[in-house]
Amino acid sequence: MTVADASTRDHYPTRGNASELIERRDPTVWPGVDSGPASRAELAAHADRGFHSVEGLLSPAEVQAYWHELDRLTRDPEVRADERTVVEKSSDQVRSIFDVHKISGPLGELVRDPRVLDRARQILGSDVYVHQSRINYMPGFEGNGFYWHSDFETWHAEDGMPAPRAVSISIALTDNYPFNGGLMIIPGSHRRFISCAGETPQRNYRSSLKEQEVGVPSHDDITKLAYECGIEQFTGSAGSALWFDSNCLHGSGNNITPFPRSNIFVVFNSVHNTLVEPYAAVEPRPEFIAAHDFTPVTR
Amino acid sequence: MTVADASTRDHYPTRGNASELIERRDPTVWPGVDSGPASRAELAAHADRGFHSVEGLLSPAEVQAYWHELDRLTRDPEVRADERTVVEKSSDQVRSIFDVHKISGPLGELVRDPRVLDRARQILGSDVYVHQSRINYMPGFEGNGFYWHSDFETWHAEDGMPAPRAVSISIALTDNYPFNGGLMIIPGSHRRFISCAGETPQRNYRSSLKEQEVGVPSHDDITKLAYECGIEQFTGSAGSALWFDSNCLHGSGNNITPFPRSNIFVVFNSVHNTLVEPYAAVEPRPEFIAAHDFTPVTR
Repeated sequence: MTVADASTRDHYPTRGNASELIERRDPTVWPGVDSGPASRAELAAHADRGFHSVEGLLSPAEVQAYWHELDRLTRDPEVRADERTVVEKSSDQVRSIFDVHKISGPLGELVRDPRVLDRARQILGSDVYVHQSRINYMPGFEGNGFYWHSDFETWHAEDGMPAPRAVSISIALTDNYPFNGGLMIIPGSHRRFISCAGETPQRNYRSSLKEQEVGVPSHDDITKLAYECGIEQFTGSAGSALWFDSNCLHGSGNNITPFPRSNIFVVFNSVHNTLVEPYAAVEPRPEFIAAHDFTPVTR
Repeated sequence: MTVADASTRDHYPTRGNASELIERRDPTVWPGVDSGPASRAELAAHADRGFHSVEGLLSPAEVQAYWHELDRLTRDPEVRADERTVVEKSSDQVRSIFDVHKISGPLGELVRDPRVLDRARQILGSDVYVHQSRINYMPGFEGNGFYWHSDFETWHAEDGMPAPRAVSISIALTDNYPFNGGLMIIPGSHRRFISCAGETPQRNYRSSLKEQEVGVPSHDDITKLAYECGIEQFTGSAGSALWFDSNCLHGSGNNITPFPRSNIFVVFNSVHNTLVEPYAAVEPRPEFIAAHDFTPVTR
């Protein structure tokens, strides 16, 4: 194999004939940025388990301010009509607003906030840009869960993200209980890439944001990882944040409780890991789902 | 009102025009049986919250023995063909076996076991008989939950159970995590009867065992109780048991984890609370769902 071969070879092949586990070749916490809000212990935990949480990242007053902003956005006719807004047909309620760091001033500030930006830089060891952002609102009683998946599998296959050098932050705007459809995550699963069976249909994103049909790991692979590593849940008060690696296997159950769930979700990608052509799809997904503006976020 | 009127009046009217909360008129823990395995504190908790749990009711060896029995039953062609066995069409797997205390010797022993029988007698303050029994098996990945309901509402409306003088025991044969579709219960909810809107269709039980369409409390009533009292989950190792009053508001989420769930479920009713004509249905449900053999269980 020549050097050129090695540099262009896809280390994370997926959407082929079979589901299989492949050892991850890349670090989770990257060297390069020495200071920031994350402690050594937090970074070590993140590298080891693939995630770590920060209690009280936002103060109660800040949580309330973001609630007001969410409320304002969902009532704004222009936002409701925007293709980046997901409105549930049956109830006419806004479920998600994508690209929200561009649509909303306060959310734009949040991705530049040192508590957020500087920790992303520490984990990824470089300047970072926003690959995707959104704010989600799930009502009580009828919250649908999301089946097990690795975000990176989709971002690699459908967006052309070369390596798992991306990190997500989910900030809870409501209290997360163990029983209202919160995130379940398999610690250590980020160290294995689950190559998923199946070819990517055209415009897959239109249905896959609701329910994935390709990019779904096999029962055997999920079982192996869950029995080996266990399952943890992200619980905590409103204002808590979960940082998790792009290749963590995660999912969520449904929510029949009266307690709604709302969160802010931002994906930071390293500027050294910018998108190329999709690895397993005919065309890349739209900009508001997978940005091609690689401008680093600065304060 | 004459004495005769008072004695025949239905204190728990349901399946009418509207959902509403009615104060319970009956005790939860009844006087009459002074000794047994339940401590004073356990009985007080049961009266106050509507449930209490017993860790390690069954030893690990006993759990294994009941697993073997479940396995044997699900492979027995006669049991599979029995109308009391619920077989999932798509997978051909057994999901539930009703009347299991009559079908299986070991399960018949279990309802007579002093750890079980004597506690039921203590709670209900009298001799007791088995209103319903079953063993459930829910596989991982695709376990469907069950929406919020009070068992007594159905037993009253469709089986003709006069008062909430019945208690259920659920014995876990698998570990119950907070995330694999275990029972959620609203503490204190047993003190209010939720009268549910809607008329009972004929042979309602054929679909209602999978998903209830009548006997469903309103969002408003569930919200009121959940915000006032909170929600608790029954978690614990295989062999643990939950005792809960017939009028507790409970439900369960779905289970997308690889961890299956299996449990033994027995309903004891007081011999002073035997079935009459259904309060809100044309005909009573079949014997294997609601027994009319009121013979007290004895050792």
